[in-house]
Amino acid sequence: MKQINGWITAPQGFVAAGVKAGIKKSGNYDVGIIASLVPAAAGAVFTQNVMASPAVVFSREVAKQDYARAIVFNAGCANACTGGQGMADAKRMAQLSEELLGAGKNQVYVCSTGVIGHLLPMDKVEQGIRESYKDLAVGGGEAATLAIQTTDTFVKKSAYEFKLNGKKAVIAGIAKGAGMIHPNMATMFSFITTDAAVQPAFLKKLVKEVADKSFNMVVVDGDTSTNDSMIVLANGLAGNPAIDSEQHPDYAIFYEALLAVSQDLAKLIARDGEGATKFLTVEVNEAENDTDAKVVAMAIAKSPLVKTAFFGQDPNWGRIVCAAGYSGASFSPDKVSVALNGQIIFENGLGTVPDLEKLKGVMSEHDITITVKLGAAEGKATVWTSDFSYDYVKINAEYHT
Amino acid sequence: MKQINGWITAPQGFVAAGVKAGIKKSGNYDVGIIASLVPAAAGAVFTQNVMASPAVVFSREVAKQDYARAIVFNAGCANACTGGQGMADAKRMAQLSEELLGAGKNQVYVCSTGVIGHLLPMDKVEQGIRESYKDLAVGGGEAATLAIQTTDTFVKKSAYEFKLNGKKAVIAGIAKGAGMIHPNMATMFSFITTDAAVQPAFLKKLVKEVADKSFNMVVVDGDTSTNDSMIVLANGLAGNPAIDSEQHPDYAIFYEALLAVSQDLAKLIARDGEGATKFLTVEVNEAENDTDAKVVAMAIAKSPLVKTAFFGQDPNWGRIVCAAGYSGASFSPDKVSVALNGQIIFENGLGTVPDLEKLKGVMSEHDITITVKLGAAEGKATVWTSDFSYDYVKINAEYHT
Repeated sequence: MKQINGWITAPQGFVAAGVKAGIKKSGNYDVGIIASLVPAAAGAVFTQNVMASPAVVFSREVAKQDYARAIVFNAGCANACTGGQGMADAKRMAQLSEELLGAGKNQVYVCSTGVIGHLLPMDKVEQGIRESYKDLAVGGGEAATLAIQTTDTFVKKSAYEFKLNGKKAVIAGIAKGAGMIHPNMATMFSFITTDAAVQPAFLKKLVKEVADKSFNMVVVDGDTSTNDSMIVLANGLAGNPAIDSEQHPDYAIFYEALLAVSQDLAKLIARDGEGATKFLTVEVNEAENDTDAKVVAMAIAKSPLVKTAFFGQDPNWGRIVCAAGYSGASFSPDKVSVALNGQIIFENGLGTVPDLEKLKGVMSEHDITITVKLGAAEGKATVWTSDFSYDYVKINAEYHT
Repeated sequence: MKQINGWITAPQGFVAAGVKAGIKKSGNYDVGIIASLVPAAAGAVFTQNVMASPAVVFSREVAKQDYARAIVFNAGCANACTGGQGMADAKRMAQLSEELLGAGKNQVYVCSTGVIGHLLPMDKVEQGIRESYKDLAVGGGEAATLAIQTTDTFVKKSAYEFKLNGKKAVIAGIAKGAGMIHPNMATMFSFITTDAAVQPAFLKKLVKEVADKSFNMVVVDGDTSTNDSMIVLANGLAGNPAIDSEQHPDYAIFYEALLAVSQDLAKLIARDGEGATKFLTVEVNEAENDTDAKVVAMAIAKSPLVKTAFFGQDPNWGRIVCAAGYSGASFSPDKVSVALNGQIIFENGLGTVPDLEKLKGVMSEHDITITVKLGAAEGKATVWTSDFSYDYVKINAEYHT
């Protein structure tokens, strides 16, 4: 398996487009389509927010089908809390795309992101979908990626090439998200394509598993969005015998590739956390079990006190162990240790006397790994997050409705 | 029942003192004692943080006794994550106070607040306790209150006078706390005294009940501290027949007074939230049950996106209903309504077209009540919180270890 520099159209048989439909005030790309030239096995996970967008409610129906043809999407308006009209608009986005693509009913996923509580400007959206259809091309990956962004400050993509039964296969993914990030099944948007052949029911199972190890391990602000969607399309054009179980000879390599793309994108989302000055990896080891480890890692990653301490470049282990303490996980305080990029600052329940010069160096770095060992058993988890800065407050106090 | 302007020594038979022992870098008051002249029925609740301070671990033992004589406390050092030496120091604070006050073993509660991870400077603490003992006086309430503060910007106190079986009784409380506020049993510190007679076991039960309706309903940053302690001393000098059950004729009035003091102090803590520019009351009604109502209210109150929106004076109902949606409570989106100080901005699952001038007026106010009706059943809860400002980040990025 090797990483390649490709867009969402890098796997064989995928085309994409993004256009400037006039939904975003900035005038940037805001409507797009990603389509497979042949029906693709599809798996997806969505937000568990009760106030889920009509786009999510509709796409859940699409996800019940074995195969899908495309994803149609817009940024600048989340189409959330928009009632019956919002549902009609989501359906219209799908229906128009189905017509243009010659796809069957419920074969196009719909995704919307942006401000909550406004109806989609459907004239602009429909025009955008028609233009996107005309622009669909293997070279359309970059425009499509730009058309899912909101407060993102950089493009989030990842792609790998690997062999399945001797045949070349490619997997590629894009994602968006910088705020309202605390996915509970998937993140804001993550679209992944592959030309590998995967049996549909097995793909749906894999998507859930991988979401739990990637997007569900990212937190920026602790707010779970109304529109989170992770969608994987596998069109089988690589020509490998379809992967249909953990016992399949190609299962391991495909799982590794899917997990790598998903974790790459998840980390990019944390790295682009609103106002972020630090990219923080919280590794918890030696927990009672994996669930406890995740609970502790999430408590640390979500703590505003921990996040502001890292913004202030303060190695404040008190706040880290305090968050572990209130997380709800069970462990003995006197067995806990904490290290920052390998520098131990807390051991056997007590602060250590660290090399202050070295520690100052660690705190000034952009990427910091917080390693917490609980001394209980073998449970482990890794969560990715960012710090809390003045700019976080600025972005969210000024992003008006 | 009437509110009075009194310190913690307003009930008969209580004395207090606070001194400048040199623990705080600022040189402010930092050690003190509150004592009852006679043994007082005592009830207390403490943080459930696994990393609880030795002061809390020790005080839990004191709380097993029916009666207590005093509370000894310091600010500027939390004596948390300090291992065996920390426990010895907490015990020494109690033992020295017992000696000076002529109290029996395990009759003095110990409370410490401040930075986590440093040992108490015991020479200064012991000297402070000796000086506090000499200063103990009915007039010592203000100094004692100052000696529990850390990042607090104003004094938090509340007192009421009421009649029990024809006899005058008084209840008074003080509290501290502005950050690391998400109590899970009690808040940072809340000390309450009363001269009412209450049977000890019944008092312990009442304290738990009232904590759930007051301090456990405040959140500033979602971080549960290592040192939260709520302690109630009832010395019986009012001379009323001891209140020992819900059937007691004086139960209702005493409960009302205890709840009033506790809620007053809880609200003052939210009002003094670090960097706060707003005092937010989140009222959730018509939930499936009270637990669901609390879950929704807490999700809204803890959401950094909601908190920064209020700092930006933006009536962003999208973030409010989004938080309700991911809280885990069950309800139908199309039955939800949201009002800000009575102005409805969201109804039947859709944003309304509000009077923008009026709404602008509401958002510019310091005290804002967010009322969320879920349209499910009769469950309700009220949570108090503050907004998230630049100063929140400043205070917590610069409060170095």
